[in-house]
Amino acid sequence: MREILVLYEQFKRKAQILGDLKSDETLSIIIKIFELCTAFLDRLERTALKSKVADKDYFSFVKASKISRAINESLYMLGIENVPKFFSCIRNNKYGDISSEQITAACYVIAINFCAAIDIEKDRNQKTPGTFFEYLIGHLYARRIQMNPTTKLSVLNLDMEGTLPTDFVFDLGKNEMKFHVPVKLSTRERVIQVWAHQKLLDGIYGTGRFLGMFTCLAETKTDKNKREVVEICLPFQWRLYQMFIAQLTRIYYLDMPKIYERLNDEFPKIRVAKFGDFFLEYDTLKG
Amino acid sequence: MREILVLYEQFKRKAQILGDLKSDETLSIIIKIFELCTAFLDRLERTALKSKVADKDYFSFVKASKISRAINESLYMLGIENVPKFFSCIRNNKYGDISSEQITAACYVIAINFCAAIDIEKDRNQKTPGTFFEYLIGHLYARRIQMNPTTKLSVLNLDMEGTLPTDFVFDLGKNEMKFHVPVKLSTRERVIQVWAHQKLLDGIYGTGRFLGMFTCLAETKTDKNKREVVEICLPFQWRLYQMFIAQLTRIYYLDMPKIYERLNDEFPKIRVAKFGDFFLEYDTLKG
Repeated sequence: MREILVLYEQFKRKAQILGDLKSDETLSIIIKIFELCTAFLDRLERTALKSKVADKDYFSFVKASKISRAINESLYMLGIENVPKFFSCIRNNKYGDISSEQITAACYVIAINFCAAIDIEKDRNQKTPGTFFEYLIGHLYARRIQMNPTTKLSVLNLDMEGTLPTDFVFDLGKNEMKFHVPVKLSTRERVIQVWAHQKLLDGIYGTGRFLGMFTCLAETKTDKNKREVVEICLPFQWRLYQMFIAQLTRIYYLDMPKIYERLNDEFPKIRVAKFGDFFLEYDTLKG
Repeated sequence: MREILVLYEQFKRKAQILGDLKSDETLSIIIKIFELCTAFLDRLERTALKSKVADKDYFSFVKASKISRAINESLYMLGIENVPKFFSCIRNNKYGDISSEQITAACYVIAINFCAAIDIEKDRNQKTPGTFFEYLIGHLYARRIQMNPTTKLSVLNLDMEGTLPTDFVFDLGKNEMKFHVPVKLSTRERVIQVWAHQKLLDGIYGTGRFLGMFTCLAETKTDKNKREVVEICLPFQWRLYQMFIAQLTRIYYLDMPKIYERLNDEFPKIRVAKFGDFFLEYDTLKG
């Protein structure tokens, strides 16, 4: 476990010097973290959770009195099979032989393995999994777009001048697309921030200039005493946000809630998709 | 301490049945909590903190290895003197003989006493102080406006129908003002939510229909190891939010950061004021 945390610190340093987020060295650190987490978790017991989520089964890793967050069983199994193939796709930036489902499941395993290891070894530490996930997703976008992101933008508006801190922003250059990529482990009521940041970019730089690509792990909540897992979704609020605050272009999930998937068919038709879709539709998105 | 927590549970129940938030019984519970917290804290040592905030001194209550959050010294002293007078104003809903400074300081003491007691007795419990503060401020608005708030609004929009959960909303009736009152202990980067909720209300119900009255305790952050206190302010972002997301009518503080006070004089002139002002300017605001 100590080794995982040392590598995590290296990963953080790489990511914070944003020029390095995309690099092969960063990918190698992620692969090593994945291998160590897998080895660590393989020695643990698993316990099935009572799933209150329709058509999905969840389990947790267990060590003495400690229990990890909920893990989607079928997604995990599919992911474990496909992680090596996915890492090879990422290394070569070629996605011809892999499906969206395989990518999504592989990313899920890489993310959830680290989160589960921290859940078991650290007390109520939410920050470390959140930071790891943010940088992991940042790295994957950076590999696909073949560009490092920025996390600040200049504001020049008559007599106002300053710097706006942002989520990951990938600016493909003059007259090209710009991607705005907020990342969260889960959303609940805090998700309105994502629409508000999009509104701010639309207002300052012009509507349509940044495509909002919100990326999220899951919406599960685990009751560790009851060993029960629920999914918390607010689809009605999302529709209001999309209608009255700003328009997000995509919302990508690793463990997609069915309730949000249905928003593809309701007004205002929010495009909620599996994260794997991004790798396959990127060329279309960048236009 | 046990008695304080029992009263806190009673207060929460009163507040959650919103029809009771304004009531005299709720006020009596708040007064009792205040008295018990004061008695509890009076037996403790105080330690001066190294203040990195210009022109403000802070201290913490200390018990063995436990240390409370930072408390503004001069505000606390002014508040302690004025709490009885303030409770009597609240009881009679008459504010002719009390100044904005006295109201602000008294509210500060009532709020911070409870927070400090919880800091000392409970481990890293942020939820209890936050909930107490929200309901305390809700009660004070309800007394001044002489009306209980709601925390949900109906949405009827062609084929869309549903309920939007909100912060406190006081609706004075047809053709009268409506107040939208978000409440937080401190803001940091999460404050964009407040502007986003205002934007949502403007969008759904029409701009200008709800006056946004954001109410906040302080922006201090205490480093308990270094015994040092700083104030975290993001005035440039606030100006962008006010220009590009929505317009808040007032931002009230109990321990007002100087940096935000200056926003009264800069474009777009955000009206940041002491919370006590609300009690004196309410008749003007409701028009």
